[in-house]
Amino acid sequence: MRTHFADSLDDLSCGLASMCGLTVTAMSEATAALLDADLRTAERVLDANTDLERAASDWEHKSFSLLALQAPVAHDLRFTVGGLHIAASLQRMGALAVHIAKIARLRHPTSAVPPEARAVVADMGRTAVARATETQVILRHVDSAHAQELVAADTVMDELHRRLFTVTQAQQWPHGVQAAVDITLLGRFYERFCDHTVEIGRRIIFLETGRLPARPDALLP
Amino acid sequence: MRTHFADSLDDLSCGLASMCGLTVTAMSEATAALLDADLRTAERVLDANTDLERAASDWEHKSFSLLALQAPVAHDLRFTVGGLHIAASLQRMGALAVHIAKIARLRHPTSAVPPEARAVVADMGRTAVARATETQVILRHVDSAHAQELVAADTVMDELHRRLFTVTQAQQWPHGVQAAVDITLLGRFYERFCDHTVEIGRRIIFLETGRLPARPDALLP
Repeated sequence: MRTHFADSLDDLSCGLASMCGLTVTAMSEATAALLDADLRTAERVLDANTDLERAASDWEHKSFSLLALQAPVAHDLRFTVGGLHIAASLQRMGALAVHIAKIARLRHPTSAVPPEARAVVADMGRTAVARATETQVILRHVDSAHAQELVAADTVMDELHRRLFTVTQAQQWPHGVQAAVDITLLGRFYERFCDHTVEIGRRIIFLETGRLPARPDALLP
Repeated sequence: MRTHFADSLDDLSCGLASMCGLTVTAMSEATAALLDADLRTAERVLDANTDLERAASDWEHKSFSLLALQAPVAHDLRFTVGGLHIAASLQRMGALAVHIAKIARLRHPTSAVPPEARAVVADMGRTAVARATETQVILRHVDSAHAQELVAADTVMDELHRRLFTVTQAQQWPHGVQAAVDITLLGRFYERFCDHTVEIGRRIIFLETGRLPARPDALLP
């Protein structure tokens, strides 16, 4: 019974890692669609999100069955319950990539990102993809030591977000209110995407140690 | 044992309703702080959020103990697991009220809301408070029939959000980029707050019926 349960947990952790892989692709393509004003790529991000939604729903169903049929305790219970939070964060990460793709689609054939903001947005996209890629590895190996690094590494995106904000507030911003509004929302979407990787890191630490670490200062409400 | 468990479930549902009450106060005060540029009220919202965070952490601890010690099944399991999602949404609602209070504080002694946007923002605040108040009642009575109404009622906030967007995009917007950026973020915070009440409605329906209803179109990513 225990061995069967261990297999089931391994299944669940694979499922989370594979959903996380979908968010890596979604964020990478959403950023490309945004910077290159590429409508087909934007549409692909929107379509692909149904796969993530379906995977999350299947995952939740499986973990619910495990809880009902096997009544896990201690680590196994923490894993099953913590996984529900993680699956919710992954769904939200997919939705945020979709929001970015939708702004790309809305402004097509123009890019929503004016030249002054391009470098920072590209960096935000790279950071988000890198963070989600690390998260995927950590989920696959349920690795709380590396999860600790994920929780601590949040300052890069915050700094980029501050720089992006400064760009739109510059006296010489010539692109008007609409472009500034787009950039504000984009900055928020990238930042929230990374916030969720930190949340996942915290949950991984909890399920390995039984202790949910405090949110880093930057994430305090 | 079952009676004891029923008491525990009642306890859990009271706990969720009482957390929801904290979000009602937070959103009501955050909106007042914003419209009146009232620094003391803004600070109070920030302070009060630690109560919500503590309540959510206690709630999660209790529901985890229930899962570990009583291994609930069927409705009781759905309740305990669904409650974890609901507690997460309530925490997020509190954080969104805090974000609004922080914008009020940042722009003090000026109001972050220019006269042209005042009526719409006031309406958004009222709608958010009304929706959270309904949510509190639904949580107290675990009432899936009324939860259905909550899930269906999402169009009002969407319409307000669209109106707010139109205000900032008007040719004659005289308040510059910074004010438009503030208004954009505020609109997003109010909308996300209401999105979470819809998510809670969906979870209540799930825990009563075992069926998680689709998200309304407006909430599709």
